[in-house]
Amino acid sequence: MNSWQDSRAFLIDLDGVLYDDNQPIPGAAEAIAHLREKGCPFRFATNTTMRCRASLQRKLAGWGFQVSEDEIFSAPVAAAHYLRQQGQPRAFLLLTEDAQRDFDGLETTDQQPDFVVMGDMGDEFNATLLNKAFRLILGGAEFIALQKNRYWKTAEGLTLDAGPFVVALEYATGQQARVIGKPSRDFFQLAVDDLGVAPAQVAMIGDDIEVDVGGAQRAGLKGVLVRTGKFRETDLQSGIEPDGVIHSIADLVEYVK
Amino acid sequence: MNSWQDSRAFLIDLDGVLYDDNQPIPGAAEAIAHLREKGCPFRFATNTTMRCRASLQRKLAGWGFQVSEDEIFSAPVAAAHYLRQQGQPRAFLLLTEDAQRDFDGLETTDQQPDFVVMGDMGDEFNATLLNKAFRLILGGAEFIALQKNRYWKTAEGLTLDAGPFVVALEYATGQQARVIGKPSRDFFQLAVDDLGVAPAQVAMIGDDIEVDVGGAQRAGLKGVLVRTGKFRETDLQSGIEPDGVIHSIADLVEYVK
Repeated sequence: MNSWQDSRAFLIDLDGVLYDDNQPIPGAAEAIAHLREKGCPFRFATNTTMRCRASLQRKLAGWGFQVSEDEIFSAPVAAAHYLRQQGQPRAFLLLTEDAQRDFDGLETTDQQPDFVVMGDMGDEFNATLLNKAFRLILGGAEFIALQKNRYWKTAEGLTLDAGPFVVALEYATGQQARVIGKPSRDFFQLAVDDLGVAPAQVAMIGDDIEVDVGGAQRAGLKGVLVRTGKFRETDLQSGIEPDGVIHSIADLVEYVK
Repeated sequence: MNSWQDSRAFLIDLDGVLYDDNQPIPGAAEAIAHLREKGCPFRFATNTTMRCRASLQRKLAGWGFQVSEDEIFSAPVAAAHYLRQQGQPRAFLLLTEDAQRDFDGLETTDQQPDFVVMGDMGDEFNATLLNKAFRLILGGAEFIALQKNRYWKTAEGLTLDAGPFVVALEYATGQQARVIGKPSRDFFQLAVDDLGVAPAQVAMIGDDIEVDVGGAQRAGLKGVLVRTGKFRETDLQSGIEPDGVIHSIADLVEYVK
Protein backbone atom coordinates (compact mmCIF):
# COMPACT_ATOMS: atom_id res chain seq x y z
CA MET A 1 0.00 0.00 0.00
CA ASN A 2 1.35 3.39 -0.92
CA SER A 3 1.46 6.08 1.74
CA TRP A 4 -0.47 9.30 1.46
CA GLN A 5 2.72 11.20 0.63
CA ASP A 6 2.81 9.34 -2.68
CA SER A 7 -0.59 10.74 -3.70
CA ARG A 8 -0.78 12.07 -7.24
CA ALA A 9 -3.47 14.65 -6.40
CA PHE A 10 -5.08 16.36 -3.43
CA LEU A 11 -8.48 17.45 -2.23
CA ILE A 12 -8.12 20.25 0.29
CA ASP A 13 -10.73 21.54 2.69
CA LEU A 14 -10.95 25.32 3.06
CA ASP A 15 -12.30 26.39 6.48
CA GLY A 16 -9.88 25.26 9.20
CA VAL A 17 -7.26 24.13 6.69
CA LEU A 18 -6.47 27.15 4.49
CA TYR A 19 -7.90 29.68 6.91
CA ASP A 20 -9.26 29.79 10.42
CA ASP A 21 -11.02 32.52 12.41
CA ASN A 22 -11.06 34.60 9.25
CA GLN A 23 -7.28 34.54 8.89
CA PRO A 24 -5.08 32.50 6.55
CA ILE A 25 -3.16 29.65 8.18
CA PRO A 26 0.57 30.52 8.19
CA GLY A 27 2.37 28.81 5.33
CA ALA A 28 -0.85 27.76 3.57
CA ALA A 29 -0.38 29.98 0.52
CA GLU A 30 3.18 28.67 0.14
CA ALA A 31 1.93 25.08 0.35
CA ILE A 32 -0.57 25.68 -2.46
CA ALA A 33 2.12 27.38 -4.55
CA HIS A 34 4.39 24.39 -3.89
CA LEU A 35 1.77 21.90 -5.19
CA ARG A 36 1.35 23.99 -8.31
CA GLU A 37 5.09 24.16 -8.82
CA LYS A 38 5.36 20.38 -8.52
CA GLY A 39 2.54 19.94 -11.09
CA CYS A 40 0.44 18.16 -8.51
CA PRO A 41 -3.26 18.76 -9.25
CA PHE A 42 -5.69 19.70 -6.48
CA ARG A 43 -9.23 20.84 -5.82
CA PHE A 44 -10.61 22.71 -2.85
CA ALA A 45 -13.29 20.36 -1.56
CA THR A 46 -15.50 22.37 0.75
CA ASN A 47 -18.92 22.09 2.36
CA THR A 48 -19.10 25.88 2.55
CA THR A 49 -22.51 26.58 1.09
CA MET A 50 -23.03 30.28 1.72
CA ARG A 51 -20.89 31.51 -1.18
CA CYS A 52 -20.66 30.66 -4.85
CA ARG A 53 -17.44 29.55 -6.42
CA ALA A 54 -16.61 33.01 -7.82
CA SER A 55 -17.13 34.59 -4.43
CA LEU A 56 -14.90 32.00 -2.71
CA GLN A 57 -12.21 32.59 -5.32
CA ARG A 58 -12.23 36.34 -4.58
CA LYS A 59 -12.08 35.68 -0.84
CA LEU A 60 -9.08 33.37 -1.26
CA ALA A 61 -7.34 35.80 -3.60
CA GLY A 62 -7.73 38.50 -0.95
CA TRP A 63 -5.65 36.34 1.39
CA GLY A 64 -2.95 35.79 -1.22
CA PHE A 65 -4.05 32.35 -2.46
CA GLN A 66 -3.54 31.97 -6.21
CA VAL A 67 -6.57 29.89 -7.08
CA SER A 68 -8.79 29.59 -10.14
CA GLU A 69 -12.57 29.12 -9.94
CA ASP A 70 -12.24 25.70 -11.57
CA GLU A 71 -10.09 24.52 -8.69
CA ILE A 72 -12.94 25.10 -6.24
CA PHE A 73 -15.18 22.07 -5.87
CA SER A 74 -17.83 23.10 -3.35
CA ALA A 75 -21.07 21.42 -2.31
CA PRO A 76 -23.16 23.92 -4.34
CA VAL A 77 -21.00 23.25 -7.43
CA ALA A 78 -21.45 19.49 -6.93
CA ALA A 79 -25.23 19.88 -6.47
CA ALA A 80 -25.59 22.04 -9.59
CA HIS A 81 -23.64 19.34 -11.45
CA TYR A 82 -25.99 16.66 -10.07
CA LEU A 83 -29.10 18.64 -11.07
CA ARG A 84 -27.82 19.21 -14.61
CA GLN A 85 -27.42 15.42 -14.92
CA GLN A 86 -31.18 15.06 -14.22
CA GLY A 87 -32.30 16.71 -17.45
CA GLN A 88 -33.92 20.10 -17.08
CA PRO A 89 -35.21 20.08 -13.55
CA ARG A 90 -36.96 22.95 -11.75
CA ALA A 91 -35.59 23.66 -8.30
CA PHE A 92 -36.46 25.64 -5.20
CA LEU A 93 -33.20 26.89 -3.68
CA LEU A 94 -32.92 27.39 0.08
CA LEU A 95 -29.57 29.08 -0.37
CA THR A 96 -28.06 32.51 0.09
CA GLU A 97 -28.28 34.77 -2.94
CA ASP A 98 -24.51 34.40 -3.34
CA ALA A 99 -24.58 30.58 -3.39
CA GLN A 100 -27.49 30.58 -5.85
CA ARG A 101 -25.10 31.92 -8.55
CA ASP A 102 -23.58 28.44 -8.87
CA PHE A 103 -27.00 27.35 -10.18
CA ASP A 104 -27.17 29.91 -13.00
CA GLY A 105 -28.98 28.47 -16.00
CA LEU A 106 -31.19 26.14 -13.95
CA GLU A 107 -34.87 27.04 -13.63
CA THR A 108 -35.80 28.03 -10.10
CA THR A 109 -39.37 28.15 -8.83
CA ASP A 110 -41.48 27.76 -5.71
CA GLN A 111 -44.35 26.22 -7.70
CA GLN A 112 -44.15 22.42 -7.79
CA PRO A 113 -40.38 22.17 -8.25
CA ASP A 114 -38.72 18.80 -8.91
CA PHE A 115 -36.11 19.49 -6.23
CA VAL A 116 -35.74 21.43 -2.99
CA VAL A 117 -32.04 22.24 -2.50
CA MET A 118 -30.90 23.31 0.95
CA GLY A 119 -27.62 24.78 2.17
CA ASP A 120 -26.60 26.98 5.06
CA MET A 121 -28.44 30.31 5.04
CA GLY A 122 -27.03 31.58 8.32
CA ASP A 123 -29.18 34.32 9.81
CA GLU A 124 -31.51 34.20 6.81
CA PHE A 125 -33.11 30.92 7.97
CA ASN A 126 -36.63 31.52 9.21
CA ALA A 127 -39.88 29.65 9.78
CA THR A 128 -41.57 31.04 6.66
CA LEU A 129 -38.88 29.69 4.33
CA LEU A 130 -38.72 26.36 6.15
CA ASN A 131 -42.50 25.96 5.96
CA LYS A 132 -42.39 26.66 2.25
CA ALA A 133 -39.72 24.00 1.72
CA PHE A 134 -41.63 21.59 3.98
CA ARG A 135 -44.80 21.88 1.89
CA LEU A 136 -42.94 21.55 -1.41
CA ILE A 137 -41.27 18.33 -0.23
CA LEU A 138 -44.64 16.96 0.97
CA GLY A 139 -45.93 17.94 -2.48
CA GLY A 140 -43.43 15.61 -4.14
CA ALA A 141 -40.17 17.55 -4.62
CA GLU A 142 -36.98 15.56 -3.99
CA PHE A 143 -35.05 16.88 -1.02
CA ILE A 144 -31.37 17.63 -1.67
CA ALA A 145 -29.06 18.75 1.15
CA LEU A 146 -25.73 20.33 0.29
CA GLN A 147 -24.39 19.01 3.59
CA LYS A 148 -25.46 18.05 7.10
CA ASN A 149 -22.70 19.69 9.15
CA ARG A 150 -23.80 20.33 12.73
CA TYR A 151 -22.11 23.66 13.39
CA TRP A 152 -19.13 25.80 12.53
CA LYS A 153 -17.06 28.54 14.10
CA THR A 154 -17.97 32.17 13.37
CA ALA A 155 -17.13 35.49 15.01
CA GLU A 156 -20.14 34.92 17.31
CA GLY A 157 -18.87 31.52 18.44
CA LEU A 158 -20.12 28.06 17.48
CA THR A 159 -22.98 28.57 15.07
CA LEU A 160 -25.61 26.27 13.57
CA ASP A 161 -24.70 24.99 10.09
CA ALA A 162 -27.12 23.59 7.49
CA GLY A 163 -27.36 20.15 9.15
CA PRO A 164 -29.79 21.02 11.97
CA PHE A 165 -32.20 22.62 9.48
CA VAL A 166 -31.91 19.67 7.09
CA VAL A 167 -32.65 17.29 9.96
CA ALA A 168 -35.65 19.45 10.97
CA LEU A 169 -37.22 19.00 7.52
CA GLU A 170 -36.33 15.30 7.42
CA TYR A 171 -38.16 14.84 10.72
CA ALA A 172 -41.19 16.88 9.61
CA THR A 173 -41.54 15.23 6.19
CA GLY A 174 -40.43 11.71 7.12
CA GLN A 175 -38.07 11.81 4.12
CA GLN A 176 -34.30 11.54 4.13
CA ALA A 177 -32.45 14.20 2.17
CA ARG A 178 -29.99 13.13 -0.50
CA VAL A 179 -26.73 14.64 0.75
CA ILE A 180 -24.53 15.93 -2.05
CA GLY A 181 -21.61 17.47 -0.11
CA LYS A 182 -19.00 15.76 2.06
CA PRO A 183 -19.02 13.05 3.39
CA SER A 184 -21.19 11.58 0.63
CA ARG A 185 -19.47 9.11 -1.66
CA ASP A 186 -20.96 10.95 -4.66
CA PHE A 187 -19.14 14.13 -3.70
CA PHE A 188 -15.71 12.51 -3.50
CA GLN A 189 -16.33 10.57 -6.69
CA LEU A 190 -17.35 13.72 -8.60
CA ALA A 191 -14.30 15.57 -7.26
CA VAL A 192 -11.94 12.73 -8.17
CA ASP A 193 -13.49 12.51 -11.66
CA ASP A 194 -12.79 16.21 -12.00
CA LEU A 195 -9.13 15.58 -11.13
CA GLY A 196 -8.88 12.66 -13.55
CA VAL A 197 -6.95 10.52 -11.06
CA ALA A 198 -7.91 7.16 -9.45
CA PRO A 199 -9.39 7.53 -5.92
CA ALA A 200 -6.59 5.55 -4.25
CA GLN A 201 -4.08 8.07 -5.57
CA VAL A 202 -5.85 11.08 -4.09
CA ALA A 203 -5.48 12.35 -0.50
CA MET A 204 -8.15 14.49 1.16
CA ILE A 205 -6.71 16.98 3.65
CA GLY A 206 -9.16 18.27 6.23
CA ASP A 207 -9.78 19.22 9.85
CA ASP A 208 -12.94 17.12 10.32
CA ILE A 209 -12.16 13.54 11.29
CA GLU A 210 -15.62 12.28 10.32
CA VAL A 211 -16.54 14.32 7.28
CA ASP A 212 -13.13 14.78 5.64
CA VAL A 213 -11.08 11.79 6.78
CA GLY A 214 -13.84 9.19 7.27
CA GLY A 215 -15.77 10.31 4.19
CA ALA A 216 -12.69 10.23 1.95
CA GLN A 217 -11.63 6.80 3.20
CA ARG A 218 -15.09 5.31 2.57
CA ALA A 219 -14.87 6.60 -1.02
CA GLY A 220 -11.48 4.91 -1.49
CA LEU A 221 -9.28 7.99 -1.02
CA LYS A 222 -6.62 8.63 1.59
CA GLY A 223 -7.66 10.83 4.51
CA VAL A 224 -5.18 13.21 6.15
CA LEU A 225 -6.02 15.18 9.28
CA VAL A 226 -4.56 18.62 10.07
CA ARG A 227 -4.13 19.87 13.63
CA THR A 228 -5.71 23.23 12.77
CA GLY A 229 -9.32 24.48 12.64
CA LYS A 230 -11.76 22.30 14.56
CA PHE A 231 -9.13 19.61 15.31
CA ARG A 232 -9.22 18.24 18.87
CA GLU A 233 -6.86 15.62 20.36
CA THR A 234 -9.90 13.43 21.05
CA ASP A 235 -10.44 13.14 17.28
CA LEU A 236 -7.58 10.64 17.32
CA GLN A 237 -9.65 8.31 19.53
CA SER A 238 -12.78 8.53 17.38
CA GLY A 239 -12.34 5.10 15.80
CA ILE A 240 -11.41 6.61 12.45
CA GLU A 241 -7.70 6.22 11.71
CA PRO A 242 -6.31 8.91 9.42
CA ASP A 243 -3.75 7.88 6.81
CA GLY A 244 -1.69 10.80 8.07
CA VAL A 245 -1.81 13.53 10.71
CA ILE A 246 0.06 16.75 9.98
CA HIS A 247 0.57 19.92 11.93
CA SER A 248 -0.96 22.09 9.25
CA ILE A 249 -1.33 22.39 5.48
CA ALA A 250 2.07 24.13 5.53
CA ASP A 251 3.69 20.71 6.02
CA LEU A 252 2.86 19.74 2.44
CA VAL A 253 5.99 21.59 1.33
CA GLU A 254 7.99 19.02 3.26
CA TYR A 255 6.01 15.91 2.33
CA VAL A 256 5.30 16.46 -1.37
CA LYS A 257 8.58 16.18 -3.22
CA MET B 1 -60.70 -5.69 32.00
CA ASN B 2 -63.09 -2.77 32.08
CA SER B 3 -63.95 -1.00 28.86
CA TRP B 4 -63.11 2.65 28.22
CA GLN B 5 -66.78 3.58 28.66
CA ASP B 6 -66.43 2.69 32.35
CA SER B 7 -63.66 5.31 32.81
CA ARG B 8 -64.06 7.48 35.89
CA ALA B 9 -62.29 10.46 34.33
CA PHE B 10 -61.15 11.77 30.94
CA LEU B 11 -58.22 13.52 29.35
CA ILE B 12 -59.34 15.33 26.22
CA ASP B 13 -57.17 16.70 23.45
CA LEU B 14 -58.11 20.13 22.10
CA ASP B 15 -57.04 20.65 18.49
CA GLY B 16 -58.86 18.17 16.25
CA VAL B 17 -61.11 16.98 19.08
CA LEU B 18 -62.89 20.04 20.45
CA TYR B 19 -62.23 22.19 17.40
CA ASP B 20 -60.81 21.80 13.93
CA ASP B 21 -59.91 24.31 11.23
CA ASN B 22 -60.65 27.06 13.73
CA GLN B 23 -64.26 25.93 14.28
CA PRO B 24 -65.78 23.99 17.15
CA ILE B 25 -66.66 20.35 16.39
CA PRO B 26 -70.47 19.99 16.30
CA GLY B 27 -71.76 18.60 19.60
CA ALA B 28 -68.45 19.09 21.42
CA ALA B 29 -69.71 21.78 23.81
CA GLU B 30 -72.70 19.57 24.69
CA ALA B 31 -70.39 16.59 25.35
CA ILE B 32 -68.31 18.66 27.78
CA ALA B 33 -71.47 19.91 29.50
CA HIS B 34 -72.66 16.30 29.72
CA LEU B 35 -69.46 15.17 31.48
CA ARG B 36 -69.81 18.01 33.95
CA GLU B 37 -73.47 17.14 34.60
CA LYS B 38 -72.53 13.51 35.27
CA GLY B 39 -69.85 14.64 37.75
CA CYS B 40 -67.16 13.02 35.62
CA PRO B 41 -63.87 14.91 36.03
CA PHE B 42 -61.75 15.81 33.01
CA ARG B 43 -58.72 17.78 31.91
CA PHE B 44 -57.86 19.16 28.52
CA ALA B 45 -54.54 17.51 27.75
CA THR B 46 -52.96 19.45 24.92
CA ASN B 47 -49.59 19.86 23.28
CA THR B 48 -50.60 23.33 22.12
CA THR B 49 -47.62 25.41 23.19
CA MET B 50 -48.26 28.81 21.61
CA ARG B 51 -50.79 30.01 24.20
CA CYS B 52 -50.89 30.11 27.97
CA ARG B 53 -53.69 28.47 29.92
CA ALA B 54 -55.62 31.73 30.42
CA SER B 55 -55.46 32.48 26.72
CA LEU B 56 -56.69 28.98 25.81
CA GLN B 57 -59.54 29.33 28.28
CA ARG B 58 -60.67 32.57 26.61
CA LYS B 59 -60.43 30.98 23.16
CA LEU B 60 -62.58 28.02 24.30
CA ALA B 61 -65.10 30.30 26.01
CA GLY B 62 -65.47 32.21 22.76
CA TRP B 63 -66.66 29.00 21.13
CA GLY B 64 -69.17 28.32 23.91
CA PHE B 65 -67.08 25.84 25.94
CA GLN B 66 -67.61 26.28 29.68
CA VAL B 67 -64.11 25.56 30.93
CA SER B 68 -62.04 26.77 33.86
CA GLU B 69 -58.30 27.45 33.61
CA ASP B 70 -57.63 24.64 36.10
CA GLU B 71 -59.15 22.16 33.69
CA ILE B 72 -56.53 22.95 31.08
CA PHE B 73 -53.45 20.79 31.39
CA SER B 74 -51.16 21.91 28.58
CA ALA B 75 -47.53 21.12 27.86
CA PRO B 76 -46.40 24.58 29.10
CA VAL B 77 -48.36 24.08 32.34
CA ALA B 78 -46.75 20.65 32.80
CA ALA B 79 -43.28 22.08 32.10
CA ALA B 80 -43.73 24.97 34.55
CA HIS B 81 -44.80 22.36 37.11
CA TYR B 82 -41.69 20.30 36.39
CA LEU B 83 -39.40 23.34 36.70
CA ARG B 84 -40.93 24.35 40.03
CA GLN B 85 -40.14 20.84 41.32
CA GLN B 86 -36.43 21.51 40.56
CA GLY B 87 -36.03 24.21 43.21
CA GLN B 88 -35.55 27.72 41.92
CA PRO B 89 -34.16 27.22 38.46
CA ARG B 90 -33.32 29.92 35.94
CA ALA B 91 -34.69 29.25 32.49
CA PHE B 92 -34.35 30.55 28.94
CA LEU B 93 -37.76 30.27 27.28
CA LEU B 94 -38.03 29.69 23.53
CA LEU B 95 -41.76 30.29 23.68
CA THR B 96 -44.26 32.83 22.42
CA GLU B 97 -44.87 35.75 24.75
CA ASP B 98 -48.35 34.34 25.39
CA ALA B 99 -47.11 30.87 26.43
CA GLN B 100 -44.45 32.42 28.68
CA ARG B 101 -47.24 33.57 31.03
CA ASP B 102 -47.61 29.99 32.31
CA PHE B 103 -44.07 30.41 33.71
CA ASP B 104 -44.83 33.51 35.77
CA GLY B 105 -42.79 33.53 38.96
CA LEU B 106 -39.89 31.58 37.48
CA GLU B 107 -36.67 33.47 36.80
CA THR B 108 -35.94 33.77 33.09
CA THR B 109 -32.54 34.67 31.68
CA ASP B 110 -30.29 34.19 28.68
CA GLN B 111 -27.17 34.20 30.89
CA GLN B 112 -26.16 30.68 31.95
CA PRO B 113 -29.69 29.36 32.60
CA ASP B 114 -30.24 25.94 34.17
CA PHE B 115 -32.81 25.07 31.52
CA VAL B 116 -33.63 25.91 27.92
CA VAL B 117 -37.36 25.36 27.38
CA MET B 118 -38.64 25.09 23.83
CA GLY B 119 -42.16 25.09 22.42
CA ASP B 120 -43.71 26.05 19.11
CA MET B 121 -43.01 29.67 18.19
CA GLY B 122 -44.63 29.56 14.75
CA ASP B 123 -43.37 32.35 12.52
CA GLU B 124 -41.23 33.74 15.36
CA PHE B 125 -38.64 30.95 15.03
CA ASN B 126 -35.44 32.29 13.51
CA ALA B 127 -31.75 31.46 13.30
CA THR B 128 -30.71 34.05 15.89
CA LEU B 129 -32.94 32.56 18.60
CA LEU B 130 -31.97 28.99 17.70
CA ASN B 131 -28.26 29.87 17.83
CA LYS B 132 -28.74 31.43 21.25
CA ALA B 133 -30.46 28.29 22.56
CA PHE B 134 -27.80 26.11 20.90
CA ARG B 135 -24.97 27.92 22.70
CA LEU B 136 -26.78 27.85 26.05
CA ILE B 137 -27.30 24.07 25.80
CA LEU B 138 -23.63 23.59 24.86
CA GLY B 139 -22.85 25.76 27.90
CA GLY B 140 -24.57 23.28 30.20
CA ALA B 141 -28.29 24.15 30.29
CA GLU B 142 -30.67 21.16 30.34
CA PHE B 143 -32.78 21.02 27.20
CA ILE B 144 -36.54 20.70 27.78
CA ALA B 145 -38.96 20.29 24.88
CA LEU B 146 -42.65 20.91 25.44
CA GLN B 147 -43.37 18.45 22.64
CA LYS B 148 -41.91 17.00 19.46
CA ASN B 149 -44.96 17.13 17.18
CA ARG B 150 -43.95 17.14 13.52
CA TYR B 151 -46.57 19.47 12.09
CA TRP B 152 -50.12 20.72 12.49
CA LYS B 153 -52.85 22.18 10.36
CA THR B 154 -53.18 25.97 10.12
CA ALA B 155 -54.94 28.33 7.73
CA GLU B 156 -51.81 28.15 5.51
CA GLY B 157 -51.90 24.35 5.35
CA LEU B 158 -49.67 21.82 7.10
CA THR B 159 -47.22 23.82 9.18
CA LEU B 160 -44.07 22.92 11.11
CA ASP B 161 -44.69 22.36 14.83
CA ALA B 162 -42.07 22.50 17.60
CA GLY B 163 -40.70 19.00 16.85
CA PRO B 164 -38.53 19.84 13.82
CA PHE B 165 -36.84 22.69 15.72
CA VAL B 166 -36.30 20.50 18.78
CA VAL B 167 -34.72 17.83 16.59
CA ALA B 168 -32.53 20.49 14.95
CA LEU B 169 -31.03 21.45 18.32
CA GLU B 170 -30.72 17.82 19.40
CA TYR B 171 -28.71 17.13 16.25
CA ALA B 172 -26.53 20.23 16.68
CA THR B 173 -25.82 19.70 20.40
CA GLY B 174 -25.73 15.89 20.44
CA GLN B 175 -28.11 16.01 23.41
CA GLN B 176 -31.61 14.57 23.62
CA ALA B 177 -34.27 16.93 24.92
CA ARG B 178 -36.39 15.88 27.88
CA VAL B 179 -39.89 15.91 26.42
CA ILE B 180 -42.52 17.11 28.87
CA GLY B 181 -45.70 17.10 26.76
CA LYS B 182 -47.54 14.17 25.19
CA PRO B 183 -46.63 11.35 24.62
CA SER B 184 -44.21 11.40 27.55
CA ARG B 185 -45.19 9.20 30.48
CA ASP B 186 -44.46 12.12 32.83
CA PHE B 187 -47.13 14.20 31.16
CA PHE B 188 -49.88 11.60 31.53
CA GLN B 189 -48.82 10.84 35.09
CA LEU B 190 -48.91 14.53 36.06
CA ALA B 191 -52.32 14.93 34.45
CA VAL B 192 -53.72 11.82 36.14
CA ASP B 193 -52.32 12.99 39.49
CA ASP B 194 -54.13 16.24 38.91
CA LEU B 195 -57.38 14.31 38.40
CA GLY B 196 -56.80 12.17 41.49
CA VAL B 197 -57.86 8.98 39.72
CA ALA B 198 -55.85 5.79 38.99
CA PRO B 199 -54.42 5.69 35.42
CA ALA B 200 -56.40 2.57 34.43
CA GLN B 201 -59.61 4.44 35.17
CA VAL B 202 -58.81 7.35 32.89
CA ALA B 203 -59.40 7.48 29.13
CA MET B 204 -57.49 9.84 26.86
CA ILE B 205 -59.52 11.03 23.88
CA GLY B 206 -57.51 12.31 20.94
CA ASP B 207 -57.06 12.44 17.17
CA ASP B 208 -53.40 11.39 17.12
CA ILE B 209 -52.98 7.61 17.13
CA GLU B 210 -49.33 7.79 18.25
CA VAL B 211 -49.22 10.73 20.61
CA ASP B 212 -52.66 10.52 22.22
CA VAL B 213 -53.63 6.85 22.00
CA GLY B 214 -50.20 5.21 22.06
CA GLY B 215 -48.85 7.62 24.67
CA ALA B 216 -51.82 7.15 26.99
CA GLN B 217 -51.70 3.38 26.71
CA ARG B 218 -47.98 3.25 27.53
CA ALA B 219 -48.73 5.29 30.68
CA GLY B 220 -51.44 2.80 31.73
CA LEU B 221 -54.48 4.82 30.58
CA LYS B 222 -57.10 3.88 28.02
CA GLY B 223 -56.69 5.49 24.59
CA VAL B 224 -59.70 6.46 22.50
CA LEU B 225 -59.40 7.73 18.93
CA VAL B 226 -61.82 10.21 17.35
CA ARG B 227 -62.47 10.29 13.60
CA THR B 228 -62.06 14.09 13.50
CA GLY B 229 -59.04 16.39 13.14
CA LYS B 230 -55.96 14.66 11.75
CA PHE B 231 -57.59 11.19 11.83
CA ARG B 232 -56.95 9.06 8.73
CA GLU B 233 -58.33 5.53 8.09
CA THR B 234 -54.72 4.29 7.84
CA ASP B 235 -54.26 5.18 11.53
CA LEU B 236 -56.20 1.99 12.27
CA GLN B 237 -53.43 -0.08 10.65
CA SER B 238 -50.61 1.66 12.51
CA GLY B 239 -50.01 -1.22 14.93
CA ILE B 240 -51.50 0.74 17.84
CA GLU B 241 -54.91 -0.58 18.81
CA PRO B 242 -57.16 2.05 20.40
CA ASP B 243 -59.39 0.96 23.30
CA GLY B 244 -62.17 2.67 21.41
CA VAL B 245 -62.81 4.55 18.16
CA ILE B 246 -65.64 7.09 18.11
CA HIS B 247 -67.02 9.34 15.42
CA SER B 248 -66.36 12.47 17.40
CA ILE B 249 -66.23 13.83 20.93
CA ALA B 250 -70.01 14.35 20.60
CA ASP B 251 -70.46 10.58 21.06
CA LEU B 252 -69.50 10.89 24.75
CA VAL B 253 -73.10 11.89 25.46
CA GLU B 254 -74.13 8.42 24.34
CA TYR B 255 -71.31 6.43 25.96
CA VAL B 256 -70.95 8.11 29.35
CA LYS B 257 -74.06 7.29 31.37
